Amino acid sequence: MSADASTTTLSVDLGERSYPIHIGVGLLGDSQWLSPYLAGRQVMVVTNEVVAPLYLERFKQGLPKDCEVREVVLPDGEHTKSLTSVSLIWDALLQAGFNRRCTLIALGGGVIGDMTGYAAACYQRGVAFIQVPTTLLSQVDSSVGGKTGINHPLGKNMIGAFWQPKAVLIDTNTLVTLPPRELSAGLAEVIKYGLIRDAAFLAWLEANVAALRALDSDALRHAILESCALKAAIVAEDETEQGVRALLNLGHTFGHAIEAHQGYGAWLHGEAVGTGMLMAAELSRRLEWLSKTQVERVARLLDAAGLPLAAPANMSTSDFLARMRLDKKNIDSKLRLILLRHLGDACLTDQAPPELLERLLDDFPRD
Amino acid sequence: MSADASTTTLSVDLGERSYPIHIGVGLLGDSQWLSPYLAGRQVMVVTNEVVAPLYLERFKQGLPKDCEVREVVLPDGEHTKSLTSVSLIWDALLQAGFNRRCTLIALGGGVIGDMTGYAAACYQRGVAFIQVPTTLLSQVDSSVGGKTGINHPLGKNMIGAFWQPKAVLIDTNTLVTLPPRELSAGLAEVIKYGLIRDAAFLAWLEANVAALRALDSDALRHAILESCALKAAIVAEDETEQGVRALLNLGHTFGHAIEAHQGYGAWLHGEAVGTGMLMAAELSRRLEWLSKTQVERVARLLDAAGLPLAAPANMSTSDFLARMRLDKKNIDSKLRLILLRHLGDACLTDQAPPELLERLLDDFPRD
Repeated sequence: MSADASTTTLSVDLGERSYPIHIGVGLLGDSQWLSPYLAGRQVMVVTNEVVAPLYLERFKQGLPKDCEVREVVLPDGEHTKSLTSVSLIWDALLQAGFNRRCTLIALGGGVIGDMTGYAAACYQRGVAFIQVPTTLLSQVDSSVGGKTGINHPLGKNMIGAFWQPKAVLIDTNTLVTLPPRELSAGLAEVIKYGLIRDAAFLAWLEANVAALRALDSDALRHAILESCALKAAIVAEDETEQGVRALLNLGHTFGHAIEAHQGYGAWLHGEAVGTGMLMAAELSRRLEWLSKTQVERVARLLDAAGLPLAAPANMSTSDFLARMRLDKKNIDSKLRLILLRHLGDACLTDQAPPELLERLLDDFPRD
Repeated sequence: MSADASTTTLSVDLGERSYPIHIGVGLLGDSQWLSPYLAGRQVMVVTNEVVAPLYLERFKQGLPKDCEVREVVLPDGEHTKSLTSVSLIWDALLQAGFNRRCTLIALGGGVIGDMTGYAAACYQRGVAFIQVPTTLLSQVDSSVGGKTGINHPLGKNMIGAFWQPKAVLIDTNTLVTLPPRELSAGLAEVIKYGLIRDAAFLAWLEANVAALRALDSDALRHAILESCALKAAIVAEDETEQGVRALLNLGHTFGHAIEAHQGYGAWLHGEAVGTGMLMAAELSRRLEWLSKTQVERVARLLDAAGLPLAAPANMSTSDFLARMRLDKKNIDSKLRLILLRHLGDACLTDQAPPELLERLLDDFPRD
């Protein structure tokens, strides 16, 4: 980890596939952060209709002048994360005659990042890929770890690949244009890192959540750096999700069920994960791993971050169970969950009795 | 490499991703060859309408009795190797509720193998995959090396992934039902291994090509073993095709151009590669790397294998050049080709002058 006045660089250590995450103010449009990571002259920028008018031109000014630059501008939203959109990217690459030394750049949030990464992973069996995440959620989550993919009508992220970027550029200035609701959704993932692995960071968040919502740039840089460092450490331990990496899915089994049931995009991913983490905390309390006070701390922090504390009113216990059975963590149809042994210490377990889970789902507040 | 009376096993050495290739008579339907490689109880067999009536039931008898077995039966032919077909496999997996411990099995030729492998590579970001190739071409080529993928209207194999099988089972009995034209197409790839790397094997082929076409089982086993061993050695040196592995594409740049121009399936892949190898040999002669006599040896062996010696009548020099420019081996628009320094010694080069290539394309016989 190195730092100067305005930019911090974190190195994700994955042997041959190691890559840097640069975090700072004003990185967009500054070519020193891009040039070293381009595989060749052919560059395809993938972005969406919301981000393009805000940042595409400035971003392109940061590309070397001799690049052959093409762009794909997709619609905004989770429903865009489909095989149809990925096909559009592949069509554009082939129509441009781009070869395997081309570079794909994802300029946007998690949907753009996941989809562009997947397009890069499979174009000519794998080409270079750079992430430029412009939302807090993608900065702390989907831009780190090499998970790429798309949704299927029968499940979220069901089609994808592990594919590492050559670099990640995080310009915290892009958060100025982020809707407050999306900032809160991003904070859910930041809180997650504290909950699963770092009690001290959790306490720092309780003290600084207001500064983060007010876009204090030092607070943002610290929160993003800590989040990326925690995630990078876990990913480095377990690149293909055989063990400890599963902990990063705290709140996700419940959260994915909410997202899928409500229709992707109705709840933001981070909102669903936030409520999912509270459900996981409450289930942990029913296993007598957490105290009532500790669950209240979690609820208070989520609330201060502007996140919902109740599940959707129209979602029954059996709605949850039906969706949760499709979860990728399950093995031979046994339901496995990430729960909290303590605040700052998560574990993957199949030990929660099904009836305890059902009672939690019956009792958990609906909005 | 180990052997008993009826079965030879070759180990492809790729560290954690190493896998065995079992070659023998009557392996289909014998569970000892499958059980050790299944990731769990969920098994999806992917095959096509030609292979299913011949071998599907016998194959399923070789699966452990407690497996949950589903099947996808696709149309036959290269045009099936599309994103649409892969989507059908993904739909079937999700409809069956299969999780990441499931196993995909490709029962069929190269199209089924490439497509099933790609479906496995991307389902839930990667699940287990077993190849049971039933054509000579897929036995010696597409079942070895971890290349998976599908075609795009603008290019062959443009979308795909590197994904290794857990095992490859080759039952040479399946060649009894293979049309002679497809056997010849498979022999083109066998001859390729001799041409690029092994002059002694090339001489063995000249002496045994008639026995191979007559389906002599000892000759077949030797040819498949040598081919797989040569390919496995090259793949082990260079898993992701950065260097020596590119040599396996001898004849393919010309061959892909023929396939794409004629419409996939009009020429068999092996037929196009056979003619492509003769074009590469003739271009090598024009560089004064091969003698006229050596090129004639190549032509005679291809002819004895039942392969075409002329390019399509309706394909002009500019038709070839337009298609060849899209080749994945090109770097920043410079055309690179695999040529022969000697018989048994291929190299990747961008040294053939464009005008020499054009003259070859002008002069090469059309049918």
